[in-house]
Amino acid sequence: MLKTVAPNAVAAVSEARQWDRLMQMARIGAIPGEGVNRACLTDLDRQARRLLISWAKGLGLGVSVDALGNLFLRHEGTEPGLPPVLTGSHMDTQPNGGRFDGIWGVIAGLEAVQALREAGVATKRPIEVVAWTNEEGGRFAPGCMGSMAYAGFRPPNTWDSVTDNDGLTFGEELRKHLVLESDIPRRGLGVLDGPAPFAYVEAHIEQGPRLEAEGMDIGVVEGIQGSRWFLVEIAGKTDHAGTAPLSLRKDAVQDMVRAITALNRLMEDPTDVLRFTVGRIEVNPNTSNSVADRVRFTIDFRHPEKFVLLQRGDAIAATVQAAMTSCTATVTERFHALPARFESTVPDAVEAAAKAQGLKSLRMPSGAFHDAQFLVPLCPTGMIFVPCRGGVSHHPSEYSEPHQLAAGTRVLTAVLADLANR
Amino acid sequence: MLKTVAPNAVAAVSEARQWDRLMQMARIGAIPGEGVNRACLTDLDRQARRLLISWAKGLGLGVSVDALGNLFLRHEGTEPGLPPVLTGSHMDTQPNGGRFDGIWGVIAGLEAVQALREAGVATKRPIEVVAWTNEEGGRFAPGCMGSMAYAGFRPPNTWDSVTDNDGLTFGEELRKHLVLESDIPRRGLGVLDGPAPFAYVEAHIEQGPRLEAEGMDIGVVEGIQGSRWFLVEIAGKTDHAGTAPLSLRKDAVQDMVRAITALNRLMEDPTDVLRFTVGRIEVNPNTSNSVADRVRFTIDFRHPEKFVLLQRGDAIAATVQAAMTSCTATVTERFHALPARFESTVPDAVEAAAKAQGLKSLRMPSGAFHDAQFLVPLCPTGMIFVPCRGGVSHHPSEYSEPHQLAAGTRVLTAVLADLANR
Repeated sequence: MLKTVAPNAVAAVSEARQWDRLMQMARIGAIPGEGVNRACLTDLDRQARRLLISWAKGLGLGVSVDALGNLFLRHEGTEPGLPPVLTGSHMDTQPNGGRFDGIWGVIAGLEAVQALREAGVATKRPIEVVAWTNEEGGRFAPGCMGSMAYAGFRPPNTWDSVTDNDGLTFGEELRKHLVLESDIPRRGLGVLDGPAPFAYVEAHIEQGPRLEAEGMDIGVVEGIQGSRWFLVEIAGKTDHAGTAPLSLRKDAVQDMVRAITALNRLMEDPTDVLRFTVGRIEVNPNTSNSVADRVRFTIDFRHPEKFVLLQRGDAIAATVQAAMTSCTATVTERFHALPARFESTVPDAVEAAAKAQGLKSLRMPSGAFHDAQFLVPLCPTGMIFVPCRGGVSHHPSEYSEPHQLAAGTRVLTAVLADLANR
Repeated sequence: MLKTVAPNAVAAVSEARQWDRLMQMARIGAIPGEGVNRACLTDLDRQARRLLISWAKGLGLGVSVDALGNLFLRHEGTEPGLPPVLTGSHMDTQPNGGRFDGIWGVIAGLEAVQALREAGVATKRPIEVVAWTNEEGGRFAPGCMGSMAYAGFRPPNTWDSVTDNDGLTFGEELRKHLVLESDIPRRGLGVLDGPAPFAYVEAHIEQGPRLEAEGMDIGVVEGIQGSRWFLVEIAGKTDHAGTAPLSLRKDAVQDMVRAITALNRLMEDPTDVLRFTVGRIEVNPNTSNSVADRVRFTIDFRHPEKFVLLQRGDAIAATVQAAMTSCTATVTERFHALPARFESTVPDAVEAAAKAQGLKSLRMPSGAFHDAQFLVPLCPTGMIFVPCRGGVSHHPSEYSEPHQLAAGTRVLTAVLADLANR
């Protein structure tokens, strides 16, 4: 099937049309420096979704939304009762994000389906393009809520009371969002309400420097390193900065500095494989002449090996506690994803498609986490990476060339045609 | 004069009236836990000022405002051309502030003047009660802008471009404020437009634990320790928390931790006299899965000895620079007040009045800075402290007993009668 049909569809992939759609999307939430700030469940998010839906309807795809706001665009198969091949990614961005992270995987799925249809390629299985809700976790932590709920990894009400910076809860914002999209047909929520997909394949920019540095076109992703997110809350006592003797203070900033210094020691790794980041800090009352009585900071810890992830991650709370001199601390784990390994079905299909198209591919792990990792227990899963300039992402300067993105979409098209005819 | 007149006026001070006014003021900007959040140049600030003005007008005092928004209530003297005795404090609070810091000094001035008038005590010199603009520096840093401009310590347009957390500038907010108070007669700005006051005396809660601990009623303040405020800005590079190797990062949070650790060493003081505080931290983009590309933090450094203040303060910038491993830093000094020593005129008058009233007094320095320190070059200056519970201020639990505050106001009344008849 692949040999006879896919080349027509592959040739129907339009580099210009895909780029134009990406640039149209990039205007929704545009920030200086060609960046995008489009948080999930906001009006900007809804505006982007409506644009996507308008394109999907123009192609005759079926549109539906589930209880988590995950958005599906369905290309019907010749045997509609079969579990579909699922592809897609997410449309939300980091607050200071770029134009490709996430959204390209959705647009690529749409482009692939359009190419198949324009080439007159029928597939046995349906193909569904999904835009997962809140992958980034920038507005509501953690990320990947949509895919976690879809996969039954967490109950759908797990994050209802999570708040954003304005104190709005995820539960209430999701409720409002669903009302605003109540004209869109509602579908069941993933494996809670139906069968698993036949396979899942996600296209994404690499967000790292390897493909570019090694002159490769396609990353054949074999797995995703594990991630653990923690929230540390330190409680002290506020005091007047001019009068309170240092020996009597309970200064939450000072105990935070000690905690991070101790965590740096815990996380030392001469091989430089371990990833440890304190990216978010909130101080209260946060005025220059008051001693802080409360500090909250986040820990993002990742490692490709389960043993390291468990051993060092489990030591975080005790390390923080031992660093306290005058304050008290609570450490809460908010996200825990073990390293995921993709079984060979999808990676093999990606590698074969790249080879058939004369593209240079590299088998590699993913440093970033992705919705794909929550699909691993459900069905054969894989990802297609394309290079991004300097490995930069989560920043307005994030960039991939139009032809690099088109190459990735051509591989995706072939892989979808392959899998959907199995 | 003091012996024959002041006792009548002292007896006319009403503990209940003063307390009632303080509680009325505390409702303007009330926050949970009996606290107050009343930032300068806000509607709440203007509401509090209108209430004060209504009381002043009820007493027949003259009301005027200068170009910095400093508000004056004038009790006329029998020789109106003489330089007035000035008393007062400020009406703004910290974001999580209490009911007494600042506002009591203004209400005490009003109460003292009311007591003098009710007792039929005429004074040779006018007495003016002042409410200085932006003493706290909580909304616009640094503090004491009103008194600094009044004293000619800085030109009045010095802080025009200082922004608050919403990006509003001090200059524009002051302009709007003056329009909203344009019905109030405008006066010249301090010594830029007129003669210096004859003397300045400011009543304030101690904001430290000494008076309470030693069972004293009145603190006879002899001077104010020096303060230096700095802003440190660290610039790095944002990166994806899951992909960027730690060895290649320019993580602004990590270099901030190193800078604060190095500053702690610079500021070590076994005598525990030195005050060093990092109270405010802002991180960008401040999301858990992005490496921070920018951190701003404040330094509040105080010491009663000029030599230490200069030597260690001047070493801050180099200490921060030496701590940088991958980022760049800029260190800006935003406030610099040398230790102030009050000449004996006002302290002696305060001590004499306390003694005449049978109150226990203690000569002491002030750990907090106050508007008073900028009056030192202009005229004899002093402060009256009263105890506050546990030494706590800048917090909703800040508290002084009604009788403690009344005792302070009785001393102020006697001191004003004394000074205004010299």
